[in-house]
Amino acid sequence: MEECILLDAGSGGRASQRLIADCFQRHFSNPYLDRMDDAALLPLGAGRLAMSTDSYTVTPLFFPGGSIGTLAVHGTVNDVSMLGARPRFLSCAFIIEEGLPLETLERVVRDMAEAARAADVRIVTGDTKVVQRGACDRMFINTTGIGEIVADPVPSGSNARPGDVVLVSGALGDHGLTVMAQREGLSFLSDVQSDSAPLNDMVGRILNAAGEIHVLRDPTRGGLATTLNEIAQQSGVGIEIEENAIPIHESVRSGCSFLGLDPLYLANEGKCICILPESAAEAALAAMRESPFGREAAIIGRVEEGAPQVRLTTAIGGRRLLGMLEGAQLPRIC
Amino acid sequence: MEECILLDAGSGGRASQRLIADCFQRHFSNPYLDRMDDAALLPLGAGRLAMSTDSYTVTPLFFPGGSIGTLAVHGTVNDVSMLGARPRFLSCAFIIEEGLPLETLERVVRDMAEAARAADVRIVTGDTKVVQRGACDRMFINTTGIGEIVADPVPSGSNARPGDVVLVSGALGDHGLTVMAQREGLSFLSDVQSDSAPLNDMVGRILNAAGEIHVLRDPTRGGLATTLNEIAQQSGVGIEIEENAIPIHESVRSGCSFLGLDPLYLANEGKCICILPESAAEAALAAMRESPFGREAAIIGRVEEGAPQVRLTTAIGGRRLLGMLEGAQLPRIC
Repeated sequence: MEECILLDAGSGGRASQRLIADCFQRHFSNPYLDRMDDAALLPLGAGRLAMSTDSYTVTPLFFPGGSIGTLAVHGTVNDVSMLGARPRFLSCAFIIEEGLPLETLERVVRDMAEAARAADVRIVTGDTKVVQRGACDRMFINTTGIGEIVADPVPSGSNARPGDVVLVSGALGDHGLTVMAQREGLSFLSDVQSDSAPLNDMVGRILNAAGEIHVLRDPTRGGLATTLNEIAQQSGVGIEIEENAIPIHESVRSGCSFLGLDPLYLANEGKCICILPESAAEAALAAMRESPFGREAAIIGRVEEGAPQVRLTTAIGGRRLLGMLEGAQLPRIC
Repeated sequence: MEECILLDAGSGGRASQRLIADCFQRHFSNPYLDRMDDAALLPLGAGRLAMSTDSYTVTPLFFPGGSIGTLAVHGTVNDVSMLGARPRFLSCAFIIEEGLPLETLERVVRDMAEAARAADVRIVTGDTKVVQRGACDRMFINTTGIGEIVADPVPSGSNARPGDVVLVSGALGDHGLTVMAQREGLSFLSDVQSDSAPLNDMVGRILNAAGEIHVLRDPTRGGLATTLNEIAQQSGVGIEIEENAIPIHESVRSGCSFLGLDPLYLANEGKCICILPESAAEAALAAMRESPFGREAAIIGRVEEGAPQVRLTTAIGGRRLLGMLEGAQLPRIC
């Protein structure tokens, strides 16, 4: 029986990890790639660069709180920022299905231009391919970003240490639920909207306030639960989190409960997880809350010795393991 | 009537130029983007970087002389090289249709890994999206490359000067005709194969030998004719070329004549156009010919004062204007 690529392999969960390890990393392996953070850390000339790439295939193209265009800027700006870098330049490549209304393209391009201005990055080079009708679904965008690393030490998923504190910059699940609501026409979810936002300004504030950040990650595909599991594995530590402490909007909580979804596995596009020494936690929290995108930031747990697992203390005091995303909760959310 | 994006807009010809000017450049405009070369020239830290992006949508995925994987490495390595830069790092983003055989993906990944090793660049960061069956045609790849600029001055499409000499690094049309032959099942074209190749080593040799290069461009979509027209427009000069001097393999010449195609408009993936002062032309030609990918390099014309047009002296001594590509000769060649 021939093995095929299934939707799961793009979920950001366990199947994605497997494809990356068994195929991409096996053939491409080098010290830069093998760090496996949101962006690559590159020596170039006298300085150190962060570089990150993402393709955006979200459907629908427009949704409350954003569009494929805002995601294409924010997603890559955020991945570069997660290395403690100041994003500077983006490339932008469109794959367009023949017949797409020019007006649709222009709306996306305007969204990108505005998002780039707001995030203070420049779109400096591009590419456009047009494929025949049916060869792609309307429009895909790739952006690749580079930035100057300002953090020292450079945050990495492998730097969490026992005793560190885990912060999240705001409420979880809004983006994933918004896209699902739009796609499935769930009108009772009309009050949720994507959190699509650039995090570079906030990361700069955290670095100034806290000095040292051990881990910075944005919990996109696979959500908070999957990203924390990746960090636990990369750092070889346990992570304990408190359900009661995790900010989740009431609309998201009730929507998820109705649909049988877990908000801890839903994608976010304007949030980061920050892990750092306890002594710096309050300063980092205050810095997050100063940012317009971090008003609901919270301390949600801590790093412990022990097996590389994520353990959740539930609202009613029980304890359970929080695993990685298995399968694809919803494809094409970003 | 609603205006739509047509295949022409991705051809690399006049319709592409229009879309770029009217939509992308209008909204994204900044000094880096507005240079409109194959790569962007970026100040970062103490140095100067070249950055370039391309999405690859070629069909079929494998063809004589290469694959979507070799193109994805060579195309971007070449675009970065065209700024007189040494390509160092590539990002790599896959969009995969659900159901693609894992073996097909692995073959492409192996081709990329091998091409990257041969071109001495590292693939340092990546992304994988999997979309539902029917939402894309098998597999698209984006690569974005960065490199250190070594040329001084930096070559640009706007630097051609009257009196300069025009060189091409080898025979034209092989890639475009190969893809067409494969797609249409033209078995009488079984002896053509793609010229997919990395040009960074050759560019280094030319720079060493010639010192100064005014223009470096790789004539991909739209072919030699379209690329020379772009240069003529950007530099505000006329370009005179000699049909007899342009290297074209006999198999390509006869295939084109049978199919009613003009090899000067066919895509190339391992060739460059080099324009430089006459005093450096012989040294540059010798340097090209030292490279395994430049054995058939030739001087094909010169830059003149006058209207920004490309004029061809035909094999039988006539003269005609060589325009840009109008419409799409063949979509999804790269």
